[in-house]
Amino acid sequence: MNKKMVAYTLGRLLQIEAILLIVPLVVSLLYREPMRYSASFLVIAVLTGSIGYMFTKKIPRVKTFYAKEGFVIVSLSWLLLSFFGSLPFVLNGDIPSLIDAFFETASGFTTTGASILTDVETLAHSSLFWRSFTHLIGGMGVLVFALAVLPQMESETVHIMKAEVPGPTFGKIVSRISHSARILYYMYLIFTAVVIVLLIIAGMPIFDSFIHAFGAAGTGGFGMKNGSIAPYNNAMIELILGIGMLVFGTNFNLYFLIFTRHFKDAFKSEELRWYLGFITGAIILITTQLTLSSETYHNGLEALRHSFFSVISIMTTTGFSTDNFNNWPLFSQMILIFLMFVGGMAGSTGGGMKVSRIVILIKTAFSELKRNAYPNRIVSLHFENKPVEGHMIKAIANYLIVYVGIFVLLLLLISFQLDDFTSAFSAVAATFNNIGPGLGLVGPDSSYAFFNSFNKLILSLAMIMGRLEIFPILILFSPSIWRKRA
Amino acid sequence: MNKKMVAYTLGRLLQIEAILLIVPLVVSLLYREPMRYSASFLVIAVLTGSIGYMFTKKIPRVKTFYAKEGFVIVSLSWLLLSFFGSLPFVLNGDIPSLIDAFFETASGFTTTGASILTDVETLAHSSLFWRSFTHLIGGMGVLVFALAVLPQMESETVHIMKAEVPGPTFGKIVSRISHSARILYYMYLIFTAVVIVLLIIAGMPIFDSFIHAFGAAGTGGFGMKNGSIAPYNNAMIELILGIGMLVFGTNFNLYFLIFTRHFKDAFKSEELRWYLGFITGAIILITTQLTLSSETYHNGLEALRHSFFSVISIMTTTGFSTDNFNNWPLFSQMILIFLMFVGGMAGSTGGGMKVSRIVILIKTAFSELKRNAYPNRIVSLHFENKPVEGHMIKAIANYLIVYVGIFVLLLLLISFQLDDFTSAFSAVAATFNNIGPGLGLVGPDSSYAFFNSFNKLILSLAMIMGRLEIFPILILFSPSIWRKRA
Repeated sequence: MNKKMVAYTLGRLLQIEAILLIVPLVVSLLYREPMRYSASFLVIAVLTGSIGYMFTKKIPRVKTFYAKEGFVIVSLSWLLLSFFGSLPFVLNGDIPSLIDAFFETASGFTTTGASILTDVETLAHSSLFWRSFTHLIGGMGVLVFALAVLPQMESETVHIMKAEVPGPTFGKIVSRISHSARILYYMYLIFTAVVIVLLIIAGMPIFDSFIHAFGAAGTGGFGMKNGSIAPYNNAMIELILGIGMLVFGTNFNLYFLIFTRHFKDAFKSEELRWYLGFITGAIILITTQLTLSSETYHNGLEALRHSFFSVISIMTTTGFSTDNFNNWPLFSQMILIFLMFVGGMAGSTGGGMKVSRIVILIKTAFSELKRNAYPNRIVSLHFENKPVEGHMIKAIANYLIVYVGIFVLLLLLISFQLDDFTSAFSAVAATFNNIGPGLGLVGPDSSYAFFNSFNKLILSLAMIMGRLEIFPILILFSPSIWRKRA
Repeated sequence: MNKKMVAYTLGRLLQIEAILLIVPLVVSLLYREPMRYSASFLVIAVLTGSIGYMFTKKIPRVKTFYAKEGFVIVSLSWLLLSFFGSLPFVLNGDIPSLIDAFFETASGFTTTGASILTDVETLAHSSLFWRSFTHLIGGMGVLVFALAVLPQMESETVHIMKAEVPGPTFGKIVSRISHSARILYYMYLIFTAVVIVLLIIAGMPIFDSFIHAFGAAGTGGFGMKNGSIAPYNNAMIELILGIGMLVFGTNFNLYFLIFTRHFKDAFKSEELRWYLGFITGAIILITTQLTLSSETYHNGLEALRHSFFSVISIMTTTGFSTDNFNNWPLFSQMILIFLMFVGGMAGSTGGGMKVSRIVILIKTAFSELKRNAYPNRIVSLHFENKPVEGHMIKAIANYLIVYVGIFVLLLLLISFQLDDFTSAFSAVAATFNNIGPGLGLVGPDSSYAFFNSFNKLILSLAMIMGRLEIFPILILFSPSIWRKRA
């Protein structure tokens, strides 16, 4: 383990966080909030920056870097960023408990959007802004951001990018990483700006537009009203956010292809077709059931409006809501639960298992069926018009195994406090897949406030584990990594 | 598809079922039940036997046999046996609805033990006997039984045995299948007889001893009291049944090894250690929680008594109960749910995913973790002191994929009727893993009576699919199998 290199990289990251903390400081000054708000952001920015500076004073001689260093850096940086990012909330008193603030900040950076706040409307503007700003930062990966602004680290970054960008990697990794990371970030910020402008045009207040655009961009889901999007009661806003979430749940490589004028390649994407197919199918099924079970909504159009928004919000793992789907019939809820596990496309800001993994798992199931029926026939598996290599199929199958194992473990750990299976299952599903709201006690109208400290820590870890696709955190906690080898 | 051979084999099987139907006929005569009982068994025995005779009149010229024929025979035979086996209940009026009777009989043959009866105590002795007798028959596989009594089919039977005997196959398949099948059956029947005798000694009435021994032997779980084992309130009976279930949930190859004096090999079994480890661990955890949460039981001994019985009953997928674990705290229920998926050992009469599969999945998860941390190191995986070959690991990983896929599909299908996630999830878990009772609406104190006909058929199919480890039924329903090839 090249500990000096790990410390150096983490130090750089804390310096970046210090700079980012200036933004809510400016917000608090703009809104002339009580001194304790600007003070809290200033103090923590200085503290974080100083600690970061201490770590970077010595530039490490040996810069070599292996997969395990990559994993350790990625997991430690997400833990540290969440920790330092939570301190302003504690200091200014908006979230007095450190564990609550850590949960909320981890939920922000991981773009989960699960909240321990029972009344979000009491928060100061600066706190609300920082809380949602973490979505924007976390969405494309804090470290990918670092790569974009720190070109000198270029050579060592393949491992970090691999660990932090969600989803299995198909095709070549672009050789000049910092260059392409910068292009991705530009597109990300431009799209966010477009959503902000559209929301303002649709009639949303300016501050609210920033908050909700950040929530959509990171597919995070933090809002600023207790009823999420419902209180605006504006179909145009819902449409803009719905399409916005859809855009940010899409693989950014496709936009890169469009940007570089490879239109055909972009629209030929098989993953895109499945992504849109899942969403369309779910909207049709849920709208049909909600329309037929006449109690819930007055007419089919109202059912369509809520199912459109909820399906996209859940599938992209954002978690905004226009209605409490806890009251929907079970079949519609089941479809939402299924979509929770599917998640966004690989290379998007969405969580979950990712569409491409689910598609390859489905295809593997069918090829296994054929293999059983005709043991002597060779069955190959295609994705994106190319045969998928055996080691890739194996990696995805093994990902499912590890995923299920961790899911069961999390379920057992949090079940000490809870009484009902539905709430426990959906709390794990909603945090581990980075969605936010689940069913039962953690439904869209409730919060994670009632969990005890132990469970809040467990679920915080679940969010970070889900965001980093499990392995970095597991490897961080494996003793063998820390042992010295002769 | 060698359809003639399929028809011939199915015909043979129906003839065997006709003979087995004589046993409840004798019971109904012994208990001097109303004429309609003996008549129902006689009529159906004659009908089944005649249809079987028609199918076997023409001995097929071509006896060649491939995997797909094996799968088709296995699935069709379980469907047909359940169908014809259900007719006496309809005819004598104990279960007037054909769909209910089919569910109950499929539940019997698949050794699930899920019941649509709200008051089992109203059944006649002959009906009760036939209902539990199906457990005994289904336990070791109907077709393996056929192999044992029909030696002329020997050469074609590897595919059938592979499809019907649960769990992945480790080591060599014994060359003379009908010979070893016969030895396995002898052991199976002798163990059952021992349980009957012990139950009688412990004070259980003779008829009841037969019923419960059948339920334990097949790890089925059909009883004859509405409170399952609880009404006997006899710790000795619970101990005998508990150890009995444990014995029948063990891989029968181990008894074969002991029988052939390979004691060391038998006790060296790694799967056995995991099986006993899971059970011991679960009993300790549940007993501790039940003792500490003082509301449920008066003292630790009482908690131990119920957790001992419930853990073994669930893990072996039997489903007998001494208490309603629906009232236990969630953590204890979670452990039971986890054990539902683990199930018995491979080559036992138990259901679930099988201990060996779960162990290899756990080891695969750890080796995947190592592979990620050290991408250049070669990681091998050992089970039973031998390295596990890649194609075996792949088959087990793919089994999990197919298993999860079918589970999700079943969950979606039955969620139309239900209101709560817990009941839906545990109903699928309890039928697909061949256990019987679940949580919520399908808990130990309830029944499957409230499901509509569509769901009863879906769950019947789930039980048969679970018993045959999915592929035979899926292959039966794949159109490509039935297409003629040039």
